[in-house]
Amino acid sequence: MSDSPEALLPHINSSDDLKKLSVEQLPQLCAELRQFIIDQLATNPGHFGASLGVVELTVALHYVYDTPDDSLVWDVGHQAYGHKILTGRREAFPTNRKLHGISGFPNPKESPYDAFIAGHASNSISAALGIAVGQALDHSPKRTVAIIGDGAMTGGLAFEGLNNASSSNNNLTIVLNDNHMAIDKVVGGLSNYLVKIHTSQTYNKMRAKVSRFLVDTGIIKEDDKAEYIKSLNSMKAFLTNQHNIFEGLNIRYFGPIDGHDVINLVNVFSDIKDFKGPKIVHIRTKKGKGFKPAEEFATEWHAPGKFDKVSGKRIIPEIKQDQPPLFQDVFGHTLLELARENKQIVGVTPAMATGCSMTYMMHEMPERTFDVGIAEGHAVTFSAGLAKQGKLPFCNIYSSFMQRALDNVIHDVALQNLHMVMCLDRAGLVGADGATHHGAFDLAYFRGVPNLTIASPLNELELRNLMFTAANDANGPFVIRYPRGAGSVADWHQQMKSMPIGKGYCLIPAEHELVAVLSVGPIGVVAQQAINELADEEKSGVALYNMVFVKPIDEEILRHVASRFKRIITIEDGTRMGGFGSAVLDAIADMDLAVPVKRIGLPDSFVEHGTPAELYNLLGMDKAGIQSVIKSELDKSKSSL
Amino acid sequence: MSDSPEALLPHINSSDDLKKLSVEQLPQLCAELRQFIIDQLATNPGHFGASLGVVELTVALHYVYDTPDDSLVWDVGHQAYGHKILTGRREAFPTNRKLHGISGFPNPKESPYDAFIAGHASNSISAALGIAVGQALDHSPKRTVAIIGDGAMTGGLAFEGLNNASSSNNNLTIVLNDNHMAIDKVVGGLSNYLVKIHTSQTYNKMRAKVSRFLVDTGIIKEDDKAEYIKSLNSMKAFLTNQHNIFEGLNIRYFGPIDGHDVINLVNVFSDIKDFKGPKIVHIRTKKGKGFKPAEEFATEWHAPGKFDKVSGKRIIPEIKQDQPPLFQDVFGHTLLELARENKQIVGVTPAMATGCSMTYMMHEMPERTFDVGIAEGHAVTFSAGLAKQGKLPFCNIYSSFMQRALDNVIHDVALQNLHMVMCLDRAGLVGADGATHHGAFDLAYFRGVPNLTIASPLNELELRNLMFTAANDANGPFVIRYPRGAGSVADWHQQMKSMPIGKGYCLIPAEHELVAVLSVGPIGVVAQQAINELADEEKSGVALYNMVFVKPIDEEILRHVASRFKRIITIEDGTRMGGFGSAVLDAIADMDLAVPVKRIGLPDSFVEHGTPAELYNLLGMDKAGIQSVIKSELDKSKSSL
Repeated sequence: MSDSPEALLPHINSSDDLKKLSVEQLPQLCAELRQFIIDQLATNPGHFGASLGVVELTVALHYVYDTPDDSLVWDVGHQAYGHKILTGRREAFPTNRKLHGISGFPNPKESPYDAFIAGHASNSISAALGIAVGQALDHSPKRTVAIIGDGAMTGGLAFEGLNNASSSNNNLTIVLNDNHMAIDKVVGGLSNYLVKIHTSQTYNKMRAKVSRFLVDTGIIKEDDKAEYIKSLNSMKAFLTNQHNIFEGLNIRYFGPIDGHDVINLVNVFSDIKDFKGPKIVHIRTKKGKGFKPAEEFATEWHAPGKFDKVSGKRIIPEIKQDQPPLFQDVFGHTLLELARENKQIVGVTPAMATGCSMTYMMHEMPERTFDVGIAEGHAVTFSAGLAKQGKLPFCNIYSSFMQRALDNVIHDVALQNLHMVMCLDRAGLVGADGATHHGAFDLAYFRGVPNLTIASPLNELELRNLMFTAANDANGPFVIRYPRGAGSVADWHQQMKSMPIGKGYCLIPAEHELVAVLSVGPIGVVAQQAINELADEEKSGVALYNMVFVKPIDEEILRHVASRFKRIITIEDGTRMGGFGSAVLDAIADMDLAVPVKRIGLPDSFVEHGTPAELYNLLGMDKAGIQSVIKSELDKSKSSL
Repeated sequence: MSDSPEALLPHINSSDDLKKLSVEQLPQLCAELRQFIIDQLATNPGHFGASLGVVELTVALHYVYDTPDDSLVWDVGHQAYGHKILTGRREAFPTNRKLHGISGFPNPKESPYDAFIAGHASNSISAALGIAVGQALDHSPKRTVAIIGDGAMTGGLAFEGLNNASSSNNNLTIVLNDNHMAIDKVVGGLSNYLVKIHTSQTYNKMRAKVSRFLVDTGIIKEDDKAEYIKSLNSMKAFLTNQHNIFEGLNIRYFGPIDGHDVINLVNVFSDIKDFKGPKIVHIRTKKGKGFKPAEEFATEWHAPGKFDKVSGKRIIPEIKQDQPPLFQDVFGHTLLELARENKQIVGVTPAMATGCSMTYMMHEMPERTFDVGIAEGHAVTFSAGLAKQGKLPFCNIYSSFMQRALDNVIHDVALQNLHMVMCLDRAGLVGADGATHHGAFDLAYFRGVPNLTIASPLNELELRNLMFTAANDANGPFVIRYPRGAGSVADWHQQMKSMPIGKGYCLIPAEHELVAVLSVGPIGVVAQQAINELADEEKSGVALYNMVFVKPIDEEILRHVASRFKRIITIEDGTRMGGFGSAVLDAIADMDLAVPVKRIGLPDSFVEHGTPAELYNLLGMDKAGIQSVIKSELDKSKSSL
């Protein structure tokens, strides 16, 4: 065994192992766990800062609670690496986020210690409350703890959970992990509120003095005395001119507590773990704790990629001059260009400003750019309000998070046919973040919404042109979806121009009209390669159309291909169930035509994590897979001649 | 003119007219407005209690603010009848909620006084904040007021709006209309919190005494004195052992204020209307104010139907013994029956317990039934937590409100493949509530979600059988959609039995296999009538299949009809874009078959209000419309013979 004899971490494979340690050994274990995370993440990229911040919390919770019988519900799995490492997944940890490896998020399929799925923020309180209420109904002695960051707390779902926590019989414990930082800086009143709880200077000095006075002078009647004396939180709220939101919601409040003092955390959780009723433990942690660069630049070190663990330098892959840029950068620069020309343009994003590169506009035009925190529904409805006032919002939300704003898009945007642009970043497969984060469903759930225009660019140039078109030529809601990562055109910074709304075009014409391939989005480039690499004789029977728009769909092209070609193939980077391929079928059926259509797209199942290349290969959606379908359809079209 | 000479209301057709009155005349106007609403609603049913409760608020707002230049954003239109009557729609009010009449909700298409759409609760703060921030960007002197009830305040979107209200430069005013009552009783911590603000007994007595003391004794330093003395709300929070959530979020708080004292309301709004920054005015009103039965039984009088305005008796339509029951009643009774048999069954609904008839179970099993307030996302994720704990939740949410929980269904339910039942009440057209409330999109937005089973019953018996099947035979998430109102089987209370999952059946066989009609849901009964009333010769060429399941779809039937029949017609009570008809097309395409498919369903546009019969007729989806399509398809199938 290569570990030094006194190392503790190598012996911890379950919470039972952990409980064999003395409390005094826990700080050492925390140091080892922290170093393990640093070592691992330096070479195998993942979410870094959040997990470093909760090392002590993680150790304390597993030390005090009877996991996995007791349920720990982590809000957003970013913070759960320590949890995974302590619960039997230390040796598997190098496979984190890799194909067939462990997931970057808690996943009940992976371990009984993972009590609930945790990819999208703000769900922990509702989910844990359900578990806790179920336990109470069963008169079970089991306990449930939700661990939620202050960033996730800004999501409306978290508030709905909090608001309901006191309504039913339950013993839920909520740990508010307050590091004053979501992916980007936490915004909103709640955030300021939490800061003020901490920075109370007067509290400790004044508490004793005032409480003694109130009783002595009889301002508080003898009958009420006990209650008032107990009300330390209330008193603090008063003295700091602040108020405790949680006690206002009938949830017992403890804190704030130093989240890096593992021994104190063990004491606190031991004290309160069997208290009846819902309670919140507010701990204060530092994101990136124990790794100086990550402490200082938390946003940058949220998911830093590879880094040198000694020098603390991030290893940033060199982008060559002639490489295609990230769609994200193209979005960011183009938005800024458009906003310079059109004073009505504003930018709105729910905590994804860095990820989607709205930061360029934010730096130059802070007053016209709004990061509303983790609050997707609000981001859309707030944008709708801005649009009502004559602004032209570009609201950027990752595809998988836009699932949270469907009603806002239907009720607040589409029903009023407001002119605004919704950019769905990270549409299609995102890679290592896996099932919770793939942008698989947006075409299916948006296609049924009246008044929407839905488009996806083939490449960087079309992204720019679609943004230009959405701003200048549209007069209703306009959706543009594009994937994470680089496109295919290095020389992206060309003059923008309008694209005709609802029109596609032919990328590769066919000499013999056998198979028409219709694609939408950047996967059309893969289709293009697939066709170009066919043997000449095969290629002559295949046409490729870039449809650009899923809604309205180009009926002229559809009528042409449905009446002329033997077979149609549709290709999209989204679910086959109800998406672009279905739109093609619907439109052709409405023309009273019937032609065989083979739809290539994501399957009707959740796709796990891996690199996009690996996943598209597995799903038969890479160049070879597409070629194979084309050949098969060609064969069928010939046999039916 | 039949009005008595001194009547004021007949002269008010705009807020300008209102401003010509003296403040002293406003109580009389309020009385007239209240009586007008009572008179109107007695014969033309609509939402009653909410609008009576805000008569004084409505008059005060239009009196003080420069509407429509200033924007009033009403949260849920229930409360906006007075607003409509005062702003030019008094004479049109008898057409309220009727086909081509005025809408029961604020609607910008109808009037410039209606600043934003308001059918779904909790959107007002976000929307109004967008308008107010846009005004601030424009340096506009215009003002924006959001008016939100305490029920709507429990929605996460409202919290997201509140949390962001202090983040940007704006002068938004939020009126919290606190009547302690949403559709059903408001639940949750916030509700208790608001009650406690009111019932503070000690506040006024103690305020002067304590504030004097704190300054005199030097507990508060001289530098801080001014701030502490100003902090009356904070002091109140302390003295009542409660806390002001709103000031915690950096929103200036005023209240609570008597919402039925119109003159005081005018004074308050006049005082604060030009205060800078976001502010909340907390008013206390009584739902149903001025009509005694409605004051006493607020839930019953939320939307009471017709009533006798003198006796105060509701005119409840007699339900004859042999009439088919409401789907809602069948759901309610069946859930209770199932829950008696299976101790793991629990009921969850977001503020729709009365509307969906979960009240039967709630009365018998209060500890197993959870009304979580207006919080659709939480309702689903909370149910998922209960399911994780081994409970079998029946979560009932109206179809149009389930749009708010799509991500919860994808991320928290489907991804974990949890066994729970989601009942979508009010699927299809709902009638008078109109565009915001039609359950048009659920099949389209749910069909792309992996692991879901999606079914719709033909009639009451099948609703019972599907609920039985979902509870006993399924092991993943199971969606059952059914419409508002009565079905077609009077003798509904029959022994429940399993239905094979993913299987449909033939309702009407064809002698000659020309046209296959595939339906899902109760509209299949209309199709059945349409076919049965065809001439014998026509009828012989038409088969009808009740598919029951949209997902998984019955491929055996599809393979049969696609290979045997000339043409297929699909019929569904939902959007044609991506719903059941698209599922049929997708599945047939996957079989490499191609046959003409005519899809009957809701159009790709928002459908306005009217009775369901009127609307289905307009849309060609009633018996005659369906017959016409069948005949046309028959003709085509014969000409292609």
